[in-house]
Amino acid sequence: MGKTMSEKILAKAAGVPAATAGDILWVNVDKAMMDDILGPRVEIAEKMKEIKDEVWDKDKVVIISDHYTPPATIKQAEIVKFTRDWAKDHGVGNYYEFIGPCHQVMVEHGHVLPGTVVLGTDSHTCMGGALGAFASGVGSTEMLGILLTGKTWLRVPETIKVEWTGRLPDGVMAKDMSLKTIGTIGHAGATYKAVEYVGDAITNLCLDERMAITNMAVEMGAKAGLMAPDAKVVEYLKARGITEGYTLFASDSDAVFCATYRFDASELEPVVACPHEVDNVTELGNVKGQVIHQAYIGSCTGGRYNDLAAAARVLKGRKVANGVRLLVSPASHETWRRAAADGILSILAEAGAIVMAPTCGVCVGLHSGLLADGEYCISSTNRNFIGRMGSKNAGIYLASPMVVAASAITGVITDPREFF
Amino acid sequence: MGKTMSEKILAKAAGVPAATAGDILWVNVDKAMMDDILGPRVEIAEKMKEIKDEVWDKDKVVIISDHYTPPATIKQAEIVKFTRDWAKDHGVGNYYEFIGPCHQVMVEHGHVLPGTVVLGTDSHTCMGGALGAFASGVGSTEMLGILLTGKTWLRVPETIKVEWTGRLPDGVMAKDMSLKTIGTIGHAGATYKAVEYVGDAITNLCLDERMAITNMAVEMGAKAGLMAPDAKVVEYLKARGITEGYTLFASDSDAVFCATYRFDASELEPVVACPHEVDNVTELGNVKGQVIHQAYIGSCTGGRYNDLAAAARVLKGRKVANGVRLLVSPASHETWRRAAADGILSILAEAGAIVMAPTCGVCVGLHSGLLADGEYCISSTNRNFIGRMGSKNAGIYLASPMVVAASAITGVITDPREFF
Repeated sequence: MGKTMSEKILAKAAGVPAATAGDILWVNVDKAMMDDILGPRVEIAEKMKEIKDEVWDKDKVVIISDHYTPPATIKQAEIVKFTRDWAKDHGVGNYYEFIGPCHQVMVEHGHVLPGTVVLGTDSHTCMGGALGAFASGVGSTEMLGILLTGKTWLRVPETIKVEWTGRLPDGVMAKDMSLKTIGTIGHAGATYKAVEYVGDAITNLCLDERMAITNMAVEMGAKAGLMAPDAKVVEYLKARGITEGYTLFASDSDAVFCATYRFDASELEPVVACPHEVDNVTELGNVKGQVIHQAYIGSCTGGRYNDLAAAARVLKGRKVANGVRLLVSPASHETWRRAAADGILSILAEAGAIVMAPTCGVCVGLHSGLLADGEYCISSTNRNFIGRMGSKNAGIYLASPMVVAASAITGVITDPREFF
Repeated sequence: MGKTMSEKILAKAAGVPAATAGDILWVNVDKAMMDDILGPRVEIAEKMKEIKDEVWDKDKVVIISDHYTPPATIKQAEIVKFTRDWAKDHGVGNYYEFIGPCHQVMVEHGHVLPGTVVLGTDSHTCMGGALGAFASGVGSTEMLGILLTGKTWLRVPETIKVEWTGRLPDGVMAKDMSLKTIGTIGHAGATYKAVEYVGDAITNLCLDERMAITNMAVEMGAKAGLMAPDAKVVEYLKARGITEGYTLFASDSDAVFCATYRFDASELEPVVACPHEVDNVTELGNVKGQVIHQAYIGSCTGGRYNDLAAAARVLKGRKVANGVRLLVSPASHETWRRAAADGILSILAEAGAIVMAPTCGVCVGLHSGLLADGEYCISSTNRNFIGRMGSKNAGIYLASPMVVAASAITGVITDPREFF
């Protein structure tokens, strides 16, 4: 009987010949990632001191201060300092700060490799599945165990196959595919499942776009979101000097999937997730004209180079509406530099966008663009929960960067194709 | 008997033939500026409702949300919303938000004109004196009276003459002149005086540099800092489409000054204001090697185009030291765009700088880069008071953008000329 990607990756990580959904395995963790918000400061540092104040393998731990950078309060500054010092004290050289959301930084710095197990103290760790890793978020207590032993137990998940075929129309983005999938499967529809995205509409996407999809697998409750790594992934790694140390796994043709969903990309319209649930997805036409006060392009979900370029295409030569602020936070320092170098950031700024540093702050309501009572935001991020970006009396619409850009121009939710 | 600039400007504003230091005049205010932090929300809005809920002249009021943008808390978001709504409700079209510190925005948008009286609810309003305006900070209660009547009383200040002659050495900046002046006169040495900066070392400066000096006049207690407007000012205004509506006043050769200080720019070394007072100024050599954790280039004092370009000259092809973060916040959206367009921001970013949105947040410890316990920051801003940028157990060194850049490269306070 054939195996899924997850079954293959986890069998390898457990050092067993084969695994089947439902098996409970002790797996070796290839990379353990901690951020500032749920990293050392949360239970980990204190408990480590009690048990054994050393990590199992310094090179396999990655620590990234991203939520509280740049710090908005003394408390946040103290947490970043604590995280930085803890990394140093424990010999963790893979420490990054101020350069953007952890998931993007992990990928850019070669910490997410095909066929490996990557666990992190952030729920959107599943993004790494776009490179063919089994990547998942874990709690801080779980991370404590991993830091001490390098191992954790995982139940091999069943896999839901999500097939996207056909040509994505101009003006519709991977983010629309992502939201459409979540709207169909529901916020708990993939609980503890792996979701594997297949089909030519997936393989046609660039890596930036693919990550916008796997990033949000957890919004269906998924343990992991996966895509079979192809030549584009190999090329991406090669460009970063990585040519070995990974394995390209793909699900067998006779692998067992617990469910299959099929979507036709060619029929997809821009969609929007309405307040206050990610799966509250509707076609843009149904909420067209809704007033927005803030437009946000950024985060590990919607602030990559491709996202900024798509927004720039819409905004070029146009102006953000009076009374609306368009905030842009590139997904990483590398993204910022690339988009600055080729003029993308200038196009956005000339249109009136406020370009900020890379940070998780806005998306998760920690700083850099919170909402007041009664304000509505359209955002390229991954969650629109009540109070997520500030006031509990504010509302967040999730959409593609192009929809966010178009809406910033008009001040109401707008189909970007009106500007083509 | 000759008259000083202040005497001439205030006589004109009061509609009297002549004024002399010590006179108390009722003057007409040309522009009344409020920011978000000390604007409508502080006494003004409530009291206005009680008295007369209209401003005396909608076109002469300017409101700028800059301290709390982008908002780091719900409270900050609410204040910005309140400020924005108040401006709208009172017909104040001159409302700006998210585009940078008020003083820079005032100048860029033509609200500071030579020979006019500009009062604002922010202490560094005195910066406008670089264009030959009598510009000064006022309290929110004073602003309430101005909003209702368009007038306020002012005692005509005596004037201290600060003369800078000679050629400023390469690697030494206007900020060094500013700090040297403050170190000499002291933090209360010019209380309620006007400080007029004269001499070829002043007139040789570009406007960006001049503003770095007048901005900090209040750090000596001065009511205003002034420079006689010259062809550079006329040119600056012309470039913004302003060719009339202003008067070029200069102090008469026989005007009476209460004190005169003379400095030789050619002998000036880079200087640093040490924690925790702005007048605690010493030559850089005396604190060379002091460890810093954060380097900050930004604000209405040290984030203008010229500052960014000077920092880029030092940082080009070099890298920020490991463990140090260099944060950059251009002084305005316009500054950001110009520095992005010609590659300055990219040079800074390639060196490792984190380029943020224009904001007052860092300088005044409200968000976007606070310090933790025991951290030291070298900053191109205007105040190093205890706790100003975060923890009360942190320390701030004030210096020129070049010194900040050089120190970011080494991780210790460094003379930028080492990199020439």
